[in-house]
Amino acid sequence: MDKNFEPIEQLYLSQAFDTESDEEQMLTECKMIARTYALAENAVVSMGDNRRNCSYCYFSGVADVLGISPEERVSQLPSLYENFIFDRCHPDDLSRRHAEEIAFLRYIAGNSTPQHYRDYVLCNYLRVKDACGEYRWVKHRMIPLATDKNGCLLLCACIYTLATDEDRKAKFTNTRTGEVRILTNKDYENILSKREMEVLRLIDQGLLSKEISDNLCISINTVNRHRQNILQKLKVDRAIEACKLAHVMGLL
Amino acid sequence: MDKNFEPIEQLYLSQAFDTESDEEQMLTECKMIARTYALAENAVVSMGDNRRNCSYCYFSGVADVLGISPEERVSQLPSLYENFIFDRCHPDDLSRRHAEEIAFLRYIAGNSTPQHYRDYVLCNYLRVKDACGEYRWVKHRMIPLATDKNGCLLLCACIYTLATDEDRKAKFTNTRTGEVRILTNKDYENILSKREMEVLRLIDQGLLSKEISDNLCISINTVNRHRQNILQKLKVDRAIEACKLAHVMGLL
Repeated sequence: MDKNFEPIEQLYLSQAFDTESDEEQMLTECKMIARTYALAENAVVSMGDNRRNCSYCYFSGVADVLGISPEERVSQLPSLYENFIFDRCHPDDLSRRHAEEIAFLRYIAGNSTPQHYRDYVLCNYLRVKDACGEYRWVKHRMIPLATDKNGCLLLCACIYTLATDEDRKAKFTNTRTGEVRILTNKDYENILSKREMEVLRLIDQGLLSKEISDNLCISINTVNRHRQNILQKLKVDRAIEACKLAHVMGLL
Repeated sequence: MDKNFEPIEQLYLSQAFDTESDEEQMLTECKMIARTYALAENAVVSMGDNRRNCSYCYFSGVADVLGISPEERVSQLPSLYENFIFDRCHPDDLSRRHAEEIAFLRYIAGNSTPQHYRDYVLCNYLRVKDACGEYRWVKHRMIPLATDKNGCLLLCACIYTLATDEDRKAKFTNTRTGEVRILTNKDYENILSKREMEVLRLIDQGLLSKEISDNLCISINTVNRHRQNILQKLKVDRAIEACKLAHVMGLL
């Protein structure tokens, strides 16, 4: 620990995740970051590992406030979903958070390079039930910590602390430049193509694929391809969830 | 890193800094925390070690923004003063920061126990000259990380990031409860006793110790004792600095 951290910063910034040992080193470093937030800020931290499809979790003081039981406090979860938070979260806020994450990841992919993803932080606010069953405002920060050599996001930390700010607007921050971007509906524009929006609008009206096919004069295969793309872009499993999310985003 | 951090949290929270090896372990852990903030938030971090009278420093992206030269980026400073920030800081903000730190440390000493000092964060804002010589708002967070078995503060991290908040009021936050206290002039009340205030007021009027002694009908030794106590309580070296600080605190 005494040594200067420059070599590790180089590892993050200059990208060389091409060998197994580099990836192990990177994972160790990112776990240390996640664990440190728990230690220093009483946070609950979940770090998602997109390749292994699991999460590494760290629990400190806020876990007691939220009444997260000993059984829920596992150090590694077999999914990217930290259900110990999601299950306690107000459903409206969970959808909004989902929408804001999509906008955030889309924003950094469009405005930065993988080497600089970790300069960006998404900060938003959620109502989460505490140990007494009352909703508390919780601050959620998402930091994309590591990418692979192809620029895919590998590790992303979600840090949960009790909200102490008056202002609860979702924002993207660049920690290197100090630039702040308050999220607006504009951040959701163009996520779906014009055609995908037409298909989604008809799905939302309750039309079946066959009916959509007739309505738009396209083949049913094309409708199904659009459906798949919509689900993928909105990172949901079912069309009904896509519709709900599109309403949250102000697209429908 | 893979292991659960519970044992380390125990070390912080249950206090057992009575052996050399525990202290080494604690120092290593706290250095990791300081270094992690630099890595994850592009921060400049200085962790003061009150016993060894030195600071451990970590530099990331913000160091470039502030134009901190390679010569200034030493990993260990032989004092508690991070001059790479202080020298760039607006003089008014440096005094205010000093006043706010005194109020903070006094607040936690009066309202918490050493085991829980690290639940508290002081957050305030400073104008610091950047690489172009222009003042930038910098956010300063101070986290008291470790105390010795007598409850004395041993290690305290100062984390500097670019300010992204609209609101620049100094505040104390309890990360365990979410409680926030906005600093007011009330936080500076009663730092000095009534008699010490009388002495300081006369010093501020330019009176010498002999004159103060005559004026208050107390011995010159007593005046000098009060002088010493004032300097100690306000953590300054000279009476003129004490007067300046008392003006910032609204005491004079």
